[in-house]
Amino acid sequence: MNHAGRRERLRATAAERGLDAVLVTDLLNVRYLTGFTGSNGALLLRTGSPDVFGTDGRYTTQAGVQVPDVELLVDRSTVAALAREAVRPRSGGPGAGRIGYESHSLTVDGLRALESVLTDAASGGTVPELTSVRRAVEALRAVKDDDEVDALRRACAVADAALAELAAEGALRPGRTEQQVGRELDARMLAMGAEAPSFETIVATGANSAIPHHRPDGTVLREGDLLKLDFGATVDGYHSDMTRTLVLGGAGGVVAAWQREVYELVATAQAAGRAALAVGADVVGVDAAARGVIAAAGHGDHFTHGLGHGVGLEIHEAPGIGQLGAGTLAAGMAVTVEPGVYLPGHGGVRIEDTLVVTDDAPELLTLTSKELLVL
Amino acid sequence: MNHAGRRERLRATAAERGLDAVLVTDLLNVRYLTGFTGSNGALLLRTGSPDVFGTDGRYTTQAGVQVPDVELLVDRSTVAALAREAVRPRSGGPGAGRIGYESHSLTVDGLRALESVLTDAASGGTVPELTSVRRAVEALRAVKDDDEVDALRRACAVADAALAELAAEGALRPGRTEQQVGRELDARMLAMGAEAPSFETIVATGANSAIPHHRPDGTVLREGDLLKLDFGATVDGYHSDMTRTLVLGGAGGVVAAWQREVYELVATAQAAGRAALAVGADVVGVDAAARGVIAAAGHGDHFTHGLGHGVGLEIHEAPGIGQLGAGTLAAGMAVTVEPGVYLPGHGGVRIEDTLVVTDDAPELLTLTSKELLVL
Repeated sequence: MNHAGRRERLRATAAERGLDAVLVTDLLNVRYLTGFTGSNGALLLRTGSPDVFGTDGRYTTQAGVQVPDVELLVDRSTVAALAREAVRPRSGGPGAGRIGYESHSLTVDGLRALESVLTDAASGGTVPELTSVRRAVEALRAVKDDDEVDALRRACAVADAALAELAAEGALRPGRTEQQVGRELDARMLAMGAEAPSFETIVATGANSAIPHHRPDGTVLREGDLLKLDFGATVDGYHSDMTRTLVLGGAGGVVAAWQREVYELVATAQAAGRAALAVGADVVGVDAAARGVIAAAGHGDHFTHGLGHGVGLEIHEAPGIGQLGAGTLAAGMAVTVEPGVYLPGHGGVRIEDTLVVTDDAPELLTLTSKELLVL
Repeated sequence: MNHAGRRERLRATAAERGLDAVLVTDLLNVRYLTGFTGSNGALLLRTGSPDVFGTDGRYTTQAGVQVPDVELLVDRSTVAALAREAVRPRSGGPGAGRIGYESHSLTVDGLRALESVLTDAASGGTVPELTSVRRAVEALRAVKDDDEVDALRRACAVADAALAELAAEGALRPGRTEQQVGRELDARMLAMGAEAPSFETIVATGANSAIPHHRPDGTVLREGDLLKLDFGATVDGYHSDMTRTLVLGGAGGVVAAWQREVYELVATAQAAGRAALAVGADVVGVDAAARGVIAAAGHGDHFTHGLGHGVGLEIHEAPGIGQLGAGTLAAGMAVTVEPGVYLPGHGGVRIEDTLVVTDDAPELLTLTSKELLVL
């Protein structure tokens, strides 16, 4: 629970930009800065006065428990009430003159309502200036603190355990459908303490495994086919993300030469990508480390997406690791490394881990084996 | 799969407002109008030319399957590409001059990007005018068609069955925690075919039942306490919503007089609310029908929220049924009726159904008994 420390980091950013206040309306950013998990809340963060957390009457009790260290304002029109609070003259000085807002998240109608409230509240005086602080909180969120890494570790452990249990019980066998496997994986993660799956679990077998984001359907698992599982668990709001691809053995199941070849290629590329995760590494270079391995084997056109992405309160967040990415890695960033080779109509392999960048070797959070499993 | 019909209804709205096109960017509205379930998609709906559905390369295959009847445009910058398509001169005429957009959903940054693309695409000529069509699709969505009611019926059936199974197996008994019960309810809904819980399942026992939106925690269920369960299942994207409150019997458990009194009061109010669901009924009047019963018993201050809300692709959507609502009910609207009486520090009762308004009596979709159950 390092919420006060996170608010201080944002306050420093706001002060640097000459802002008197920042109105944080993105619900995940509000959660990051306060710990509040309800469906309506906003934070007025100020550089020269105490912060105010706003929510509505449904969450009065919850706000008291989750956000005990910030002044509480309860109002059905939460953002409007915080805006009025921002411009209210304080003992010792005037209200906020420059207010930051989240233009990447606030809707057009939301901004218009905010402008209207500020104009009314100024009652003929100077209307405060609204300035975008787009993605300022997301930039802070890219580097995880210890509490966050701990939550990610637990989320990854749930996914590991759920898959291990499913495999041990023989649930990944020919004759079952993708949908059955996906639902059981989800149910097991919930039973093990996940709040929810991180995203719609991908179960893709046979030719479907060549579709990067296949939705599980009634396709039946068959002997000798690939089975790609891309899934994760959410724990305390933090998302794990892992992909494993295996071969369905069954009575007469053997691994085809092309399956083994593609698997080894992707595994080698994935190891290269993991090895490239270092403080100061350029994200385009990290992508290239894995992509180069695949391209050198003549499969460059079959790796159709980026190498990875940040994970945290969102399943996809900063930093993006891909050919179109920008920036360098920092200690504490939690990212995925997930190369794939997809042969349309035939089958595909993706191998994905969640890791944390450190000053030393990256910490691997998804611990399920990456040996080619034949079940 | 009545997506083409839904697009025609929106096209009529657009034509009435003198728009050449509507750029639908809200992902749920896109799903409603096309059937697309991926995480990136937008629809250019036109009054004088064929529609275009846009997504990125991850979803090419999925778009072909889910949206076979709309022209496909694949571009990483989906909305920008659709905007350029909108202003492109067509054989037989110029591009769109007036374009509707969703100001209640599009972000401030999204609008600025859109304006910039349109200005560039006009290349010195007249820049198309952007006009808000806020909540136009949501207004259509408030009235469900047969496919939607069918999905809601199945979602409600899953929730009914999951609760019945949990009760039959004795999982709702003293000694267990709220969290255990919540997770098992969620896991069972998934095993029965739900894509996800409709929202974070509420399990509240003892004094916690007086908190309308209590998050399940480690509180232990005890003999003689109330147990409030508010939960739902999502099936084909449609959300069910049901609350039941029961009493934990156990060895020596009996129902206290105050529990029975509050329960009967809420049940009577809920029945009055359901009876008021009729075509043409004012939503404020529907709320009053239930609220009046509770107020007459002296508990008006203990019913602290609205009576109900629409349900569909979102768990909360139009129409709102409450003291601050506006409008009248129409046949095909799917709504909840969920009065509650909450005695702080003591306990609370809420009873909630999901129903569909019809020309006759409303159709009840949540079929679990509303008798006071002692488990």
